[in-house]
This record gives sequence, C-alpha cells and structure tokens, in this order.
Amino acid sequence: MFEYRFSVRGYELDSYNHVNNAVYLNYFEQARWEIMRETGLLDMLLADQIFLVVTEINIRYSKEACLFDKILIRTIIELSGPYVIFKQRMTNEDTGIKLSHAVVKTIPLNKERVPCEVPSEFDILITQTQKF
Amino acid sequence: MFEYRFSVRGYELDSYNHVNNAVYLNYFEQARWEIMRETGLLDMLLADQIFLVVTEINIRYSKEACLFDKILIRTIIELSGPYVIFKQRMTNEDTGIKLSHAVVKTIPLNKERVPCEVPSEFDILITQTQKF
Amino acid sequence: MFEYRFSVRGYELDSYNHVNNAVYLNYFEQARWEIMRETGLLDMLLADQIFLVVTEINIRYSKEACLFDKILIRTIIELSGPYVIFKQRMTNEDTGIKLSHAVVKTIPLNKERVPCEVPSEFDILITQTQKF
Amino acid sequence: MFEYRFSVRGYELDSYNHVNNAVYLNYFEQARWEIMRETGLLDMLLADQIFLVVTEINIRYSKEACLFDKILIRTIIELSGPYVIFKQRMTNEDTGIKLSHAVVKTIPLNKERVPCEVPSEFDILITQTQKF
Repeated sequence: MFEYRFSVRGYELDSYNHVNNAVYLNYFEQARWEIMRETGLLDMLLADQIFLVVTEINIRYSKEACLFDKILIRTIIELSGPYVIFKQRMTNEDTGIKLSHAVVKTIPLNKERVPCEVPSEFDILITQTQKF
Repeated sequence: MFEYRFSVRGYELDSYNHVNNAVYLNYFEQARWEIMRETGLLDMLLADQIFLVVTEINIRYSKEACLFDKILIRTIIELSGPYVIFKQRMTNEDTGIKLSHAVVKTIPLNKERVPCEVPSEFDILITQTQKF
Repeated sequence: MFEYRFSVRGYELDSYNHVNNAVYLNYFEQARWEIMRETGLLDMLLADQIFLVVTEINIRYSKEACLFDKILIRTIIELSGPYVIFKQRMTNEDTGIKLSHAVVKTIPLNKERVPCEVPSEFDILITQTQKF
Repeated sequence: MFEYRFSVRGYELDSYNHVNNAVYLNYFEQARWEIMRETGLLDMLLADQIFLVVTEINIRYSKEACLFDKILIRTIIELSGPYVIFKQRMTNEDTGIKLSHAVVKTIPLNKERVPCEVPSEFDILITQTQKF
C-alpha cells in the first residue's frame, strides 16, 4: 500500500468554499505519480517509451475537503488483463473521516500509442501492495 | 437533451500534449452549469438556498482531446429517488468521434446542508430531455 | 488588434465567488494561442521548432469577473529587441467595464532552448495590430 | 521572512512539460495563505469580515520548474499607503537556482467591499519580516 500526504490549498476551493470535484482527480493523479517515482517505474517506462493512460474512473465523494485539511491518500494496485487498476482512498488525516474513494483503470500504451502488455516491472507495485 | 459547445484551450493540455483527465470533469461540470442557467433552475435553487452536490462520477475516456478541438457535450437528466443524475457524452464535433462518457450522480442539499427532496422545478429538465 | 471572446465558467470561481487571480493568466494565455492559430504562426513556429516563452507579466486587476460574464480580450503586439510583447486588455462585454490589463513579455527560443531572433513571420502580427 | 515548501505535481505541467505560467501564481498565492494562517491573520480578518484583494502582480520567470522539483518560496511583506505588498521569490531548493520573483499588491476590503485601512494586525507580518 502506498501513502501520499498533502494539505488543501486555497486556490483549490470553488465557490462552495470546498475542494472542487475535479480537483479530487488531480489529487488522486498526483498520488499515482508519486508511486511511479518512488518505485522507479517512472524512469523505466520513460526508457521504454511506454505510458499509462487512464481509460475509466469511478469516484465517490463522501465528505467535503476544506482549506488546510490534511489529506492522506492510500493506494493499492491490481493487474487485470491488459489493465493496471489503482484503488485509491482519500481520508482527512486529522479526523480519520473518509472523503472519497476512486477506482482508476489505466492501460499501458507503447510509443505508437497502441495498447501493449503490462510491463513486468509492474510486479514491483503488486508485491508492495497490501489491503487497505 | 442539452448541448454545450466549446473549444479546447492551450493551458488545458498536460505533459502528454492532450487534455488532462481531470479537465474532462471541468468540461462536464460547465455543461451542467449551462443547463442550470438556461432553464432558470440556477436562480430558483439560489432563491431556495438549495444546492446540488456531486456524490459519484463514473467517467470513461475513449479518445484524447487536443488543442483547438471543437467539443460538443450532450446531456440528459434522470431523477432516481433522492438523486438527480446527469448522463453526459462528449464528442469531437468535427469528426463525430466520441471522446468520453460520464454519469454524474448529484443530490440536492438544503441550507443546513442536509439532503432534501428533489425540487419540483427539476421536472423542467426531464421534460426537455430526450434520448441521445 | 486581435479579439477573443468567451464566458466565465463555474469551476473558475474561487471561494470569494469570483474568478481567481491566476485564472486571468489562463484567459490571457488562451487569447495569445488564438492569435497564433488565426495568423498561422503556430504552425510556422512548430515547423521551425521555435517556441515563445513568457519571461515577465505585469497584470492589473480592476474589477472582478463573475459566473457567466461575457469577456472580451483585446490584444496588440509589439516587437522590442529580442522580445515579443503582448499588451492585453480584458473587459466585460455587456457593461464595457475594464476588468484587467496585462503586459506579457515573451522571448522566442530555438530547439536548443536558446533565445533566438524574433522570426520574420511575426511581422504579420504587427501589421495587423492597431491601437486599443 | 516567511518560507513555504512544496514539490511540483504532475498535473501542473503543460504541453511544454514544465509548470505553466499561471500555476506560478497559484504557488505564490498558496504561500500567502500559509502566512495568513501561521500568523493567525486569517482568523482575525474573517472575524472582521475583511479580505485582501489582489490589485496588481508583477512576475518575472527566470527558469522553468519541472516535475517533482522541490520549491521554496520566501516572502517578505511591506505596507505602503492603503496597500499590503508581498515580495515573493521562488527557488529550486536542490539547486538554489532562482525560478521566479513576484511583487503582489493587495488592498484590504471591508464587508461592503470598499477599501479600508490596513488593519493593525498586519504589524505582525512586518515585524516578522526581514530581507531576503
């Protein structure tokens, strides 16, 4: 399981004075970038000119996130056929309350932008992953 | 059925040179704002201090959107129990190719931020709505 | 003089319920993209692997922009030594009130990312430009 | 002098693969929010229904910021007539290279959104401020 921590920024609030729904996707995306970096996968994929493209996202919004809230995103990864699936949970770290949950389906594309096999390097992710 | 048209802007592209996945949610959200305005629902809800909150989004990404692409979003609306559900389809208007499809589940909250009945004004949306 | 028109979107508002200061830069940037496209300069620069980089912006905020406001950006361009300078004025098209004014200094870089001479193609911009 | 640290996120990159010019304003804004919180000024202003509005920004871009770069923003504050002026410098913390410099002019507005005197609480900011 991977963990990513950060705080809500002022310009991420919308006119309802809470974090806009699209910004949650930014947060979840950044948690995935951090995983790719930590594990060295980012460099491996760049070297092979492979990149992960998002094909589907299912996101549930449970509670609003507000200015300066401390956020924790926990991510686990599963392989399923040609897909790399990220299951991500966002909580308010001070209260422990769950804010959101997302399932993000991605597919690796090669340099011709054609779907390719999930590179074996992804096994790193899986073996490092436990349940929430 | 409601239609919203716009073009992709330069700053909406990410490092893959296509529209970032979170920006699709911005586009779909704006299509909903336009519906609320066109139908007069926005003013009615403001007067009643009711606001629609997104509780769940399911979004599929079929094709990438690129700089200056002309985009059309078509939206139909359904009521289901306490929910107002927006089904939204994004296409490239020049090629007719489908770019994305989203189902956005929202719930009306009253001024105490407690879920309330779907206001009868929403019938406007439904009667104006046909199939894709 | 070049003109670019658009309306304020809901997700561009911040917690003060008006367009966030950084979003003004997005708007001004898009007005420049549109000029580059209209004049064919975008394709020429891409072909020559030259790109314009912003080195300095001076922006004044006169009035706030709000949801659905119709905005007009007028741009004139000047060459000054190695710089291409965009002078941009943003007004509310319905009221005629000036919202903002920006001076954006850019410099062309070649494919080695080294400053290079302003391509002669930029004369297009200048001859099409009049005063505000 | 106030300091704010963070890292560049993947979705903040634009099609040139570096941080977009408007995102620098987001960064500088967040550095100001953090100052307002740290000093307790945010709560004081909220209690008095006073808010700071940006009236002018001058920003110079010296070097690009890239994915995962560690960024430090240093801010000093000056009072000048009715204005609160933030002078902000952004550097890459690993290399020490200056990325950007901004002078942000703000004015306090009261609850009628009319300019008002700079609240005496702002003296906190000044006494904590030294030179870069």
